[in-house]
Amino acid sequence: MEPYHHKVQYYETDKMGITHHSNYIRWMEEARVDFLARLGWDYAKLEELGIVSPVMSVACKYRSPTTFDDDVYISISVKELRPVRMTIGYNMRDREGKLVCDAVSEHCFLDTSGRIIKLSRDYPDFYAALSEYVEDKENEKNDT
Amino acid sequence: MEPYHHKVQYYETDKMGITHHSNYIRWMEEARVDFLARLGWDYAKLEELGIVSPVMSVACKYRSPTTFDDDVYISISVKELRPVRMTIGYNMRDREGKLVCDAVSEHCFLDTSGRIIKLSRDYPDFYAALSEYVEDKENEKNDT
Amino acid sequence: MEPYHHKVQYYETDKMGITHHSNYIRWMEEARVDFLARLGWDYAKLEELGIVSPVMSVACKYRSPTTFDDDVYISISVKELRPVRMTIGYNMRDREGKLVCDAVSEHCFLDTSGRIIKLSRDYPDFYAALSEYVEDKENEKNDT
Amino acid sequence: MEPYHHKVQYYETDKMGITHHSNYIRWMEEARVDFLARLGWDYAKLEELGIVSPVMSVACKYRSPTTFDDDVYISISVKELRPVRMTIGYNMRDREGKLVCDAVSEHCFLDTSGRIIKLSRDYPDFYAALSEYVEDKENEKNDT
Repeated sequence: MEPYHHKVQYYETDKMGITHHSNYIRWMEEARVDFLARLGWDYAKLEELGIVSPVMSVACKYRSPTTFDDDVYISISVKELRPVRMTIGYNMRDREGKLVCDAVSEHCFLDTSGRIIKLSRDYPDFYAALSEYVEDKENEKNDT
Repeated sequence: MEPYHHKVQYYETDKMGITHHSNYIRWMEEARVDFLARLGWDYAKLEELGIVSPVMSVACKYRSPTTFDDDVYISISVKELRPVRMTIGYNMRDREGKLVCDAVSEHCFLDTSGRIIKLSRDYPDFYAALSEYVEDKENEKNDT
Repeated sequence: MEPYHHKVQYYETDKMGITHHSNYIRWMEEARVDFLARLGWDYAKLEELGIVSPVMSVACKYRSPTTFDDDVYISISVKELRPVRMTIGYNMRDREGKLVCDAVSEHCFLDTSGRIIKLSRDYPDFYAALSEYVEDKENEKNDT
Repeated sequence: MEPYHHKVQYYETDKMGITHHSNYIRWMEEARVDFLARLGWDYAKLEELGIVSPVMSVACKYRSPTTFDDDVYISISVKELRPVRMTIGYNMRDREGKLVCDAVSEHCFLDTSGRIIKLSRDYPDFYAALSEYVEDKENEKNDT
């Protein structure tokens, strides 16, 4: 899958002259939304099915600063897929291919009443589509 | 009424070394929410009554830049109060009293089904509370 | 010139379920930066020449709400061009061509020591390039 | 030390009706800046000495959602202090004392030419002030 592209905006910089670190968390969301859409599971479809997917945690390592007008290319992988939660990995590179940031985020799936959805059972198609992108099949275990 | 206080955050600055201009629009919201709460009409109460108050327009004049760690004091006035909409005025000053920004925002009031609420008729108490802060009584007209 | 395209991000929405109004001010900057770049006067070039262009004012009328995943198309025009300042106009439409927001912003040009630059005299090429996009030639006056 | 207080703003919520997760990263910065100021090492002083302190990484676990108008109290500790870097811990609780988020961030210290500063040697006072807040003295090692 083609990496997601984000151009750094002026309003994303801070007085150090570089991109403020909080924005990378937002770009992770941009890339994740785009990834799910290209998988055929866009937010509109999830919403229609009554699925929400809150962020349980994020972790982000800043490798090299970026700044206004820089192009950032974000590659996504499924680091871990379990019946009730998943970990998404993000690899952000600049135009020259230099790593600028790598990150992970953990997600679960809830129905409209806030109950945890067992994705592998309730949405096997979605689960199968995600499995295609699991980096290391060792991580695709049956435990929760 | 005491002006609302906002301390400029590092993440609100940009690479020019000053506060990014979009943040003043957010501070207007902070000050407006605080103003309504001190008037006895906080958002929780409005929500309970099924009132939402979308922003119809904003206009903002940047007089003098601010930056990280600056104290900004925002004074609010009701510039114009009509049965179905109001204009709020904002006067932002620094610690020394220098004007850094002045602005206005226009609002209407909608019920949960999106219908315009005639505040003067449906919530006369709220309307009366707002009238107290009308700067120039000339602006408090009956037309809509 | 092709309108600038912005896709509304999830983090740009608020609990009313629509795009928070402060984001339109940021999209104005995105579209303006893109406009100047396509004119051949990108920020990198301006910076190299020691030109900064602070925002003096913004005014924004919200016509119709947008929300997550919406496409917004922003057309730019030069509303007014004077030797020492300019007013940019923004016309934001959705996929169906419906007006969602129209706005203006005023800018001046400063050199690195903070002195006002007379664009028509000091950067006649830049001034000429901007003139091409003046909507109504009546506004292109010689006064400052 | 008193926890740092942040009131959740309307513009910090998203269409799920809760605080957007990226804002917690910004509150970490607010609390950290406040912590350093109360320690006697505010940003103005650091800047004057030519010290910048970039964020090397963040990790954030979202425990319980917050929303508009909620009060969040952030307690800070120094998780780890090394001669050239430190890890700050954040504990965010609501009005009732319930944990809403816990997080860490890693920082180094650079001089104006981008060289790493050995804090323990170059700014022993600052290093000593930070040591006071190290949670577990076991982590205060001499290795880098």
